[in-house]
Formats: sequence, C-alpha cells, structure tokens
Amino acid sequence: MSVLIVGSTALDSIKTPAAENARLLGGSASHAAVAASYFAPVKLVGVVGEDFPKKYIALYRKHGVDLTGLQVEPGKTFHWSGEYEVNMNNRRTLLTELGVFERFTPHLPEGAKQTPFVLLANIAPALQHHVLDQMSRAKFVMADTMDLWLNIALDELLRLLRRIDGFALNDSEAHQLTKEDNVFAAMRKIHKLGPKYVIIKKGSHGSILSGPQGFFLCPAYPLRKVVDPTGAGDSFVGGLMGYLSTARGGIDANFRKAMVHGSVVASFCCEGFGLTRTTRATKADIARRVKELEALTRF
Amino acid sequence: MSVLIVGSTALDSIKTPAAENARLLGGSASHAAVAASYFAPVKLVGVVGEDFPKKYIALYRKHGVDLTGLQVEPGKTFHWSGEYEVNMNNRRTLLTELGVFERFTPHLPEGAKQTPFVLLANIAPALQHHVLDQMSRAKFVMADTMDLWLNIALDELLRLLRRIDGFALNDSEAHQLTKEDNVFAAMRKIHKLGPKYVIIKKGSHGSILSGPQGFFLCPAYPLRKVVDPTGAGDSFVGGLMGYLSTARGGIDANFRKAMVHGSVVASFCCEGFGLTRTTRATKADIARRVKELEALTRF
Repeated sequence: MSVLIVGSTALDSIKTPAAENARLLGGSASHAAVAASYFAPVKLVGVVGEDFPKKYIALYRKHGVDLTGLQVEPGKTFHWSGEYEVNMNNRRTLLTELGVFERFTPHLPEGAKQTPFVLLANIAPALQHHVLDQMSRAKFVMADTMDLWLNIALDELLRLLRRIDGFALNDSEAHQLTKEDNVFAAMRKIHKLGPKYVIIKKGSHGSILSGPQGFFLCPAYPLRKVVDPTGAGDSFVGGLMGYLSTARGGIDANFRKAMVHGSVVASFCCEGFGLTRTTRATKADIARRVKELEALTRF
Repeated sequence: MSVLIVGSTALDSIKTPAAENARLLGGSASHAAVAASYFAPVKLVGVVGEDFPKKYIALYRKHGVDLTGLQVEPGKTFHWSGEYEVNMNNRRTLLTELGVFERFTPHLPEGAKQTPFVLLANIAPALQHHVLDQMSRAKFVMADTMDLWLNIALDELLRLLRRIDGFALNDSEAHQLTKEDNVFAAMRKIHKLGPKYVIIKKGSHGSILSGPQGFFLCPAYPLRKVVDPTGAGDSFVGGLMGYLSTARGGIDANFRKAMVHGSVVASFCCEGFGLTRTTRATKADIARRVKELEALTRF
C-alpha cells in the first residue's frame, strides 16, 4: 500500500564543525519521503517556490515519489539555516525564511485522499488537521512534531492527538508535554491523550515504542562518524511508515521491524549532508544494517 | 569461580526530590558485592570505621560475602552525602568525609590473592594498582572508574589500563579520556590504551560493549520510577563480573548475557534507596527481568 506524506519541503544550509553546505534538499517531508520510498510508493504533499532547484525534483523522481501534491508557488522556497556544535547533538538556528511556506495550505489531490497510510511529518498542527479533514478511510495515521508546536500551538496539537494512531516525539518534548521526567511514565500519559502507538526518539540512543503489545526498545545503528543529523528523525518515521504500509501480517506484527528499518534509514541520513547519503543507499544496504542490528542486540 | 571485589565501603546520605535517607549502606564495593553475590561467591576487600553499623555486616553476610578482607579501623566510616535533581540524572555532592578511607591500603588476605575474577570497583587508581600488585593468576580483571580520577590521577589510570582486561566508564568520562565526541570512536581509542573489553555505561540508555566479537548494545530495563540511582553503575559491573565468573563456556561466549544480568541488577538498585531494593531481589526476579529484556529487544 502507499504512504501519503505531508510536511515541509525546504532548502537547508547547514554548518558543522567540519564543513558547510548551502541549499541542500531538506524539510521533514523530503527526508521522510525518500526514506519511505525504499519500502513503498510515496505521495508527497508540500510547497516549494519558483527557485526550487530542478535537480531536487529529479531526486524525488528518482525515488519514485508521486509529486502530484507538490505545489509550486510564486516566491521563494522555505530556507532554513543551522549550525551544529562539536558534539553534533546541539544545534542552533541561524536563519528561517519561510517564503511560500508561510501561506502553505496542503491541498490533497483527489487520488491521495484515500491513501491508507498517512504520515503527518513535522509541520504546524493546524496543517496536520487540515490534511486529516480531507482524508477518508485512512488505515493508520502517524504524526511527528517538534518543540515549537508545543510552545505555540499546544491546543491544536492536543486536539490532533485524539485523531491519530501513532505519535512520535523526542524525549525532551515528551517531558515538556507531560511534565514527566521518566520517559516510560511520560508515554503512559501520552496514550491517555489519544495515540495507541507512542514513539520516543532518543537520537543515538535509539527509540522506544509503547504500543498495544507493550514496550519495544529499538536500537540506533552504531555510527563512528556523524556528518549531519538533520532529518534523521524525519527519515526514521518515514522509513517506519514505508515499511509498515507494505509489510504483510498487520500493523502490530510488523511495528518493531518497521521501527528498526526506520532507524537504519536514519543512520544513513546522518552519514552525509542533507539527503546525499540517504539517496545513495540501496535496499541491500538497508537489509544489511538491519541484520547487523539484530546481531548487535542479541544475547 | 569466585570474584574478588575491591572498592569503597561507605555510608551514604541521599536526598531526592521525594525523600531523604541517612547513613545507608553504600560505596562501590558494597553495591558491586551484593550484585555479584546473586551469581557467584564474593570476597570483599575494603575498610570501615568502628561506627560501621552491625546491620550492614549482617547484610553482607546474608549475601554470603566473604568479609575476611574487610578491615575495621579506628575512626569513622567513609560518609558521602548527595542530592539528586528532579530528573534523577544530575546529582551534586553535599559532603564527603573520608574518615578511615583516607588512609585505606587494600590488604589482600592470602586466600584472595589467587581469585580468578577481580573487580577493581571505583576507587583511586593507585589503590587499584596496589591490588593487582598482590594478585597472582587472575583470569579476568575489570576496572571501573569515575571522572574524579581522570581529573586528578590520569597517569595512574592510564598505567592501570595496560594491566586490565575490561574497563567500564560512562559516556562523558569516555569523552573526557579520549576527546572523542562519538562514543564508538572513543571506544576504539580506549582499546589502544590497553583493555580488550571496553564498556560505556549510559544510565537509562543502557550500555555498549566493544570487545573481541565487536559491539553489543545492552539495554537498560525500563523503569517507570527511579527512586535512587546511586550505585547503579557499581551494581552493573558487580552483576556482570558475578555472572561471568560462574558461567560455563568462556568469557567471550558469556559477556553479553553477563552485561544483561548486570543491567537487571542495576535496575533493582534504582528502585530503592541504597541497597534496600537490591537486597530484596531474588534470583527468580532477576531471571524474569532478563527474559523480559529479551522480549523487549526482539524484532
């Protein structure tokens, strides 16, 4: 089955202690779409400006991403610029130019409205609602978020939680949302807000699922060198949803494997700037790391 | 086979946001010895003052700990007092009274000098050296440490690394020692300093082994409530060494299982003040959580 992915499509200028790269393909939907494309047909909904490089359209197409829902508007593409500290964990935003993204309203093409798997990648909760308002018969809806929306759109986010099946957020966001320091206690509180599947993303420490079958401790692939972690969380949920949408045997039976596949795609994401490494990965590369992770966690 | 454990034996006064407990049984050797006692006969070497409560001698004895090497000296027992922040991750030391520990020189009883498994729990590297100087025919020596020794006794610690088989430290200490931000790159550097087995402790995120058979990602048992994490790292290495010393089939074949058992004992440690919860655990409790961890990480 296919996955509908709605989120930001952006140009990222990223500075790390080792290098600097301007106007890379970025945005939550871009990372998630390329990640999901390894497992399933993907439909992307987003907005770009007239300055959006043709080579990035080609990159989406190389991954078979259906761009019917990609709106091209007069103006500039969303441009984000950020800088990482030496440890590659902390980053600060240097610049945010919203451009055409400021007036973005996701319009779903007719053919996308019945897509069974929906990933509401990180965008404003109001836009995530607007997508769901247009959908019918979605089988599984997952939403990702970020601290910004907890700060400025908490009510809309809380209302969204009652409309979705799965919710992904990082550990500090889970703490912010629930005021719980303990991550397992926080997950229990988040279930009460709506989602049946709660995923806490912990970066290089992996992720945790709390779902109908209890907890799952999902490992992160060990990387000796992180080049640029931007988009790793988006790649994770994208890969997860892509895997889940095509796996046979139902959602519960496949959720753990789906997370591990998402985790592996995220590891490729971290090994290059923007999408440069992810887009060069092959299905065989992904399968190899999944097998490695199996061996790395067995006891 | 039995395990020799040398380290601090102390009275801990611990304050958390929820409660406060004075003069609990603590110290790296106490936590490690009780943890190891679930798997192997333990010989403890340490020092206490004349004020050391008889009930704590009884607690050691309940766990079958051989106290021939526990020196009782005129003066006061090492007393440490600390306070945890709300998130239970950060703590600050309120008071350190070294007492008889200030002049501690570990004397190994004759019967302890050939113990095959040796755990140099966290104490000054000079004392860890002094133990090794008295040993003959040790089969496997593991050392634990803390940031203090990296700050004030780095040369002795580096010299120790060339004399031991296994070394455990936490992620920030690994960074401090190697100047490497990436934990896997740091482990590679630590191997070059001597130890064949390097373990990075990451608290609630679990631990990582780098050994002759590559990496192992060891999970932490999910706890919904952490009461007092003091001694969790000591419990982890203690349980690990206890399990390793009695497991059939060689060190490499058992190292992963040993870490998981150590991790589970550490989880009990966190559920009560001092050793109050650890000492109430049963072998069956430990086996149950090991099985749970297996299920929690399978995919």
